[in-house]
Order: sequence, then structure tokens, then C-alpha cells
Amino acid sequence: MKLNADLGESYGHWQINADKDIMPFIDMANIACGGHAGDPKVMHQTVALAKSHGVSIGAHPSYPDIQGFGRRSMSIPAEELCHIIQAQIAALDGLARCQGETLSYVKPHGALYNDMMSNKAVRLAVYNAIRTYYISLPLVVQATNQNDKLRIEAEEYGVNLLFEAFADRLYLDSGFLSPRSTPGAVLDGAQSVEQARRLIEKGEVITDSGKVLSISADTICVHGDTPEAINNVARIREILLGQND
Amino acid sequence: MKLNADLGESYGHWQINADKDIMPFIDMANIACGGHAGDPKVMHQTVALAKSHGVSIGAHPSYPDIQGFGRRSMSIPAEELCHIIQAQIAALDGLARCQGETLSYVKPHGALYNDMMSNKAVRLAVYNAIRTYYISLPLVVQATNQNDKLRIEAEEYGVNLLFEAFADRLYLDSGFLSPRSTPGAVLDGAQSVEQARRLIEKGEVITDSGKVLSISADTICVHGDTPEAINNVARIREILLGQND
Amino acid sequence: MKLNADLGESYGHWQINADKDIMPFIDMANIACGGHAGDPKVMHQTVALAKSHGVSIGAHPSYPDIQGFGRRSMSIPAEELCHIIQAQIAALDGLARCQGETLSYVKPHGALYNDMMSNKAVRLAVYNAIRTYYISLPLVVQATNQNDKLRIEAEEYGVNLLFEAFADRLYLDSGFLSPRSTPGAVLDGAQSVEQARRLIEKGEVITDSGKVLSISADTICVHGDTPEAINNVARIREILLGQND
Amino acid sequence: MKLNADLGESYGHWQINADKDIMPFIDMANIACGGHAGDPKVMHQTVALAKSHGVSIGAHPSYPDIQGFGRRSMSIPAEELCHIIQAQIAALDGLARCQGETLSYVKPHGALYNDMMSNKAVRLAVYNAIRTYYISLPLVVQATNQNDKLRIEAEEYGVNLLFEAFADRLYLDSGFLSPRSTPGAVLDGAQSVEQARRLIEKGEVITDSGKVLSISADTICVHGDTPEAINNVARIREILLGQND
Repeated sequence: MKLNADLGESYGHWQINADKDIMPFIDMANIACGGHAGDPKVMHQTVALAKSHGVSIGAHPSYPDIQGFGRRSMSIPAEELCHIIQAQIAALDGLARCQGETLSYVKPHGALYNDMMSNKAVRLAVYNAIRTYYISLPLVVQATNQNDKLRIEAEEYGVNLLFEAFADRLYLDSGFLSPRSTPGAVLDGAQSVEQARRLIEKGEVITDSGKVLSISADTICVHGDTPEAINNVARIREILLGQND
Repeated sequence: MKLNADLGESYGHWQINADKDIMPFIDMANIACGGHAGDPKVMHQTVALAKSHGVSIGAHPSYPDIQGFGRRSMSIPAEELCHIIQAQIAALDGLARCQGETLSYVKPHGALYNDMMSNKAVRLAVYNAIRTYYISLPLVVQATNQNDKLRIEAEEYGVNLLFEAFADRLYLDSGFLSPRSTPGAVLDGAQSVEQARRLIEKGEVITDSGKVLSISADTICVHGDTPEAINNVARIREILLGQND
Repeated sequence: MKLNADLGESYGHWQINADKDIMPFIDMANIACGGHAGDPKVMHQTVALAKSHGVSIGAHPSYPDIQGFGRRSMSIPAEELCHIIQAQIAALDGLARCQGETLSYVKPHGALYNDMMSNKAVRLAVYNAIRTYYISLPLVVQATNQNDKLRIEAEEYGVNLLFEAFADRLYLDSGFLSPRSTPGAVLDGAQSVEQARRLIEKGEVITDSGKVLSISADTICVHGDTPEAINNVARIREILLGQND
Repeated sequence: MKLNADLGESYGHWQINADKDIMPFIDMANIACGGHAGDPKVMHQTVALAKSHGVSIGAHPSYPDIQGFGRRSMSIPAEELCHIIQAQIAALDGLARCQGETLSYVKPHGALYNDMMSNKAVRLAVYNAIRTYYISLPLVVQATNQNDKLRIEAEEYGVNLLFEAFADRLYLDSGFLSPRSTPGAVLDGAQSVEQARRLIEKGEVITDSGKVLSISADTICVHGDTPEAINNVARIREILLGQND
């Protein structure tokens, strides 16, 4: 089980400084590539930081919307969306190669990620971007209790999937996440660490109804916005280290 | 001697349709990569068009200024400018590789090109972008009567140069171009073809003072904005074919 | 009955030159205000052109998406969308006042227009932008056979409506337009002039099923992309002049 | 003597939260209007905050460069620059009027401010933007020991000036600022408060050579990036209050 985090989300004047604090504890850095954040200098610096910690680099493409931070769904024709995604992957890919690094995977960001999970047309555009990219990169999608169905669909389109679970979000019985607007949807620190432990040790979560649900994940998404959040990531890392003993 | 042209300069709704008319007559397509023009779909399509005609693909990076079409000089710190240029090259590089194509060279666009020629700090930033890019790409610069000096400087920074001359611009005795604001600075069709012929056959131009000036070029930049311009490019192509007999 | 057209849709390098040809024949210029097109210089020039022809000036705000020309629906929270619309109106408003002109109305553009017609949440955000703008401006919406319902709704929100019909689009029995993807959805020149004549003289259209449908409109939207299109607008103007005799 | 500060410099996801802390201590809020920062929602919110504290609202236009935060000089033709500045002023103007507020002045931002002070062509473009704006707004410029010369020049172009001094920057004997790259160019907290006191009480600064220089200012620019900086602004406010007794 690997830990992934969304990084490189500064832009010009607006610098987010937590990247260096969380990098020591994660395995996979989802690096913004100019769609929602991440100007070229930020991309370069974030690749360098990941490299210095031996962290895998993934492209984190987005709808093209800096002002909306990629959180606003956009209805873009499939063919155009495919090239938009590829151009973002390619920008990071090239900057990574300039430092002797290569990309290991792609994880869509924000509204593009959500639309990919809920809207087949968007998902096919993402598959197409991955399948026709010049190197083979696995695609990170959300782990639900429908992983097999999604895996089969993706294989038909020639795409390999990595499944990610969320440490700090409450799951519904359906295997999807409780919407952020619902009270309790975002777990607190202790709950997050506990959910991560359960995901790591048993491949399960406790849903909002109290039910035990199997969630099989390759990676857990963690956040490092605050010192406390960084601390929780460190604790999840310790759980993983303990398990590997 | 090769012919190069600036292509892929559409953007979203605003489509420039002359690319397909000029592509049959040129050797090198300088393709906009999102700095001054060229959204991802346009980049993809222009690569496909170049591929279908067997035309070499070059990156045409720019100051990041869509609204100003890259024609406004911007004072960007050297390190940031280096990554801005690389990210643009990388975007086109990746999209080209998706079609089995590779980049052959880099030619800066507009104000970045002019600043590169006149401002050493900008030129060093461009050299640095080229030198630290993960593949070796020659840099297209303006041919003047100072080529050797520039070639030596570039070699010190590990960069190979290609020199380009202009068919349709009047040269000064200094080897530089008469500014567009000067009457007669832009040659008419017949003059352009004649200047191209002289560059191809003799490696010379006639300057504004009537002097014969040696201009040694690897490539001539041509434009295809109008049907008449396309026609002139076709005539220059014929001159080149005749010479190769 | 007034004629309106979408103008000022150039952007930087990409100039659309038909504005001056259609301006003599219209009453209302919907001027892009930086959301989908129209940089500040273009806005200034288009206001000047409208002023010189005594044409009313309307703001033509859009989702903030230059690259997509405002044709891509974006899911923007209502409060933010309200201010996005107001900032675009305000930019044109101020530039118009610099020339002694004032705005006469607002007509949303592209995907924002379509979403306004089909999605009540978007429509309320548009109403809110209009209602809380510092001067009172009527809102242009699509004339259907449900005008009264929409007029009552808008009045509840303190907004006055102007209804527009389309000369060159085929109507469905529902009072909405046949989608562009349907063969025959876009009328040819002769059909457009005939539909405009019927709208002007009888307040009717013939739908795709051959039914006569009442469409009560304050203004007809015309397009001037080609010389032939300009010619059709001139003919519609003549019909209006004849009617005023 | 009034205190002014640059505010509303958030953008989308990237929120700067110090505005509410500094607003109680200042007289004039220079509000970003979309050129270097300040999306429409941020503009609206910052106007509301200024209004709630009875602080005067000024437009803070910039070169159009969000990614560079308006800190990169751009060579924009004078006529175009004039409209770029006006469109930014107008956007804030309209949003302010929606809250019953009006603009009181204009202060250019960043590289535009610096270029205005050092480059007459840029200064004339700014004058022209102000002079042809539909309401009369004074222009904030840097107070040096050449105020009279600048005031006379501006009056020729029909523009009224407000002169601002800097609390936290070291002055040269020339009346200009020591460049940030020079050690000691940025004063510490105690030095800033002392320089403000001297400016308020005596209209003087001590230059880098130890010389006493007269600097006649209408307003002092203060910054509130850190809690300590806010504290210093509070102390400068107390000095002003004491003086008014």
C-alpha cells in the first residue's frame, strides 16, 4: 500500500509551502501540471523535491481552469479533452526528464477526477488520453466496491488502473464518498489514521451506516495542509512501516 | 537550404486555415506550443499535418502571453524563463511522440526571438533551456554577418545553432533587419522571391544601401498568410528544386 | 422589432473583421466583454464602431473561458458566477462611458445563454447579477412559446426581459430550437430571410413538423460571418423598413 | 497623511487572509482588479470589507499577468495599455457601485508602477487612461524630491496626483528607493515605524548616506503580510492619531 498526495499546487506569487513537509512520508507525488495550478517553475521545483526524496512522480492533469483550481466541471468535447490532458502530462513529463526522472502514473484532479468516476464519456476521454500517450502509464481511479467492473472496462480500452482510497473521507454503503456538504463527511485526524489503519490491515472501511465494506486499494490519498495533517500522515506511514516488518 | 514557417497559430475559436496550403512547400514547421497560440487540439492537428507532409517539427516557444500573441517583451527572471520555455517544448514534444514524431529543433517566437538576438541575458536563458532539455535540439537564430561570433558563444553553452534568413525583409548593412516601421522594410512578393533566390544561390542579400552582404543561412523563413504569399513560397520551393538538380 | 448581433469577438492577434460590415444594418450590438473574446482594445473599438452607427450597446458576458470561446458549460457556484458576470458587464460599461455611451441591456453568451435557458440555478445567478448591478439593464432571453412564464419569473427577481428570436435556426414544436447536430437545423440564406419576414410580419415561425407556432420577440438575432450573411441581414433590414412605412 | 495598502490580492483557490487584519488601520485600500490578482469574487469581497471599515477604495491596475503577479515589465503599445488599465479600473468601479461605493483614486501595481515612474511613454499611457476615464480620479505616484516636476507634467495631461512614501524602504539621496537587492533596502519593523514617524512629523527621511531628505507625501504605503507587520501598521496609525489631537 502506497501513500499519494496532491502537490505542486502553487502558482506564481501564491506559494503553498507544505510540500516539503509531506514529501518525506509519501510514495507518490501527484504533481499539478498547469491545468489547475503549477506554473513551469513550480513544476520543476516539485519534481526536484520528489526526486530528492525518491518519491514516484505522477501527472495530475485538470480541466484547464486556473481561476477555478480545476474544481469546476467543464463540458469539453472528448477529442479536445484528450489532447488537453495529454499536453499537461507532456509538460510535466518533459520537465521531469530534464532532471532524469520519468512519470509513473496519471491521476486526474478535482472536477475531472469526479467526472471521470461518474460520467462514462469523460472516463473514455481520459482512457483515450492515457492509451494514446506515447508511454504506458497507469491511471489512478477511486477504489469502490466496483473495482472489478472498472478494471475490466479500462482493460478494454488498453488502460491499467491503480485504485486509491481516502483516509479522511467517510464512505457510503455504495462504496462512494459521503459528499463534503454532509456533516461528518470529512474525518478528523484520529478517525483518518484509524480508517487508514483499517484500509491497510484489513482492506475495509466502516461506512456511514456502520457497515463493514471491503475497499481494495493500491494507494491511499493523504493531505498535508496543516502541521496536524502532516503529523497524521507520519502516523499512517508508521503503520505501513510496522506492517512491512 | 530549407524553408521554415510559423504554423499552428490558431487558438480555440480563432482558426487560421492557411497551414494546409503552405505545408506542401516547406521543410520545417515551427509549431506554436501554447505560449502565444496553439491550444492542445491545434498542436495535435498541426503535428498531424506536418507528419502527413514529411515536414520536420520544431517547437516555437514564446513569452507566455496569448492575448499579446507573444509580441510583447516581458522581463522574466532567467531561471523562470528557462522552465517556461522547456514546458512549452515539452508539451509539443509529448503530443508529437503520441503520433510517433519527434522534435527536430527549437525556434523562439516573436518578442522572445527578438530579445534573444538583442539581449544576452535572454539569450543565455534560452541556451540554458535548450542545454538542459532532455534531448539535444538545435536552436534557430537569425543569420547576420556575425554568425561565427554567435556560434562560438552558443557552443560554450553547449547549444548548436541553425541560422535563418528572411525572404521578405529588407536587410541593413549591419546584417540586421530594417525595422517594420521603416518604409520598404517588408519586401513585396517579387522582391521576396528574388531575395530568396540570391540567398539560395549566392548566400547574399542586397542591403537598404545597395551593398552586397554575405548572409550564410541554413534555412529561410517564409510566410503564408495570403494566397499570393503561398504562391511565392511555391516559387521559392521551385528555385530550391532547380538548384538540387 | 430590432436586430441584434454578437460583435467584438476578436482577441489580440485574432481579428474578426466583419463587425464594420454588419453594424450599419443592426440596432443592438452584443459586445463581448473579455469572458469569451474581446480584449480591452477590441471592446473600446467595438463601442466606438457601435457609437458611430448609433447602435445600442449591450454587454455579452460569458463563462470565463477564452480558449473555449465561452461554449463550454462550467459549473460555477451561483454567487461567484454572479460576480463574474458583473465584472464583465462593468468592464464594458466603464469603457463605454469613456466614450460617452451607456449600456442598454445584457445578453449572456454561448454556454451561459444555453444554461440560463435550461437550468434554473444558472438563470437565478444571471437574474441576481442583473438585479444587483448598479444600473437597471434588461436581460435578453430566448423567445419561446413560454415567454409569459419566464417574464413572471424574472419579474419576481426584479429583472426585465427582452425576448429574441433567431432568423437562421429551425424551431421545434416545443418552441425551442432544433439542435445544430440535426440536419436542417441551421437555415440557409433564403430560409432565414423568410423566417425573419414571418417573425416580423406575423410573430410566427413554421416548425420542423410544419406547424405554425407563435413566437413573440422584441429582437431578432442575426449573424454576419460571411458576405452572403451580411447581404441577408441587409434584406431583413429592408423588410423592417418596409413595415415601418 | 493617509495610510494605503495593497489588498484583494487573492485569486481563486489561493487566499490571502491578512486583508481583514490590516483594514482597520488604513485609509485607502488599493484593490487588485484582475490584472495581477483579484478575481471577481475577491474584488466584491474586498470592496465589502473596505466599505465596512469606511476605507476609501482605489483601483490597483496592473500589466495583464496573473502568473507573474504583475511584477514582470511588459512592452505594451501605449494605446492598448490605456484600455487595459481602463478595463481593470472599470471592473472594480462597477463592482464597487453595486455596493453603493465609488472609486477614489488609481494606483498602478508592481512593474506598471515602476515603469510609470521611470519610463515617460508608460507614464503618458497611464495619464491617458486616467484622463479619458469617465470620472475624474487622482493618480497615486511615488513621492520623490521631484514632486513638483511630476505634478506639472501631470497637470499638462489633465491628471491630479497623490504622492506616496514608503515606510519600510530605504531612500537614496536621489529621492528614489534603494533596490530590494541591496542589503538593508527593506527596513525592519522598528525602522519602518521610525521612518513613518519622521515622514508624518517632519516630511523627511534619512537616506542611505545619512542625509536628511525632504519627501512630501499625501499617503504612506504600508504592508500587512505578517502579524508583526500588522502591529507596525497599528503603531503608525497611533502616531497619526496622536498628531491629529
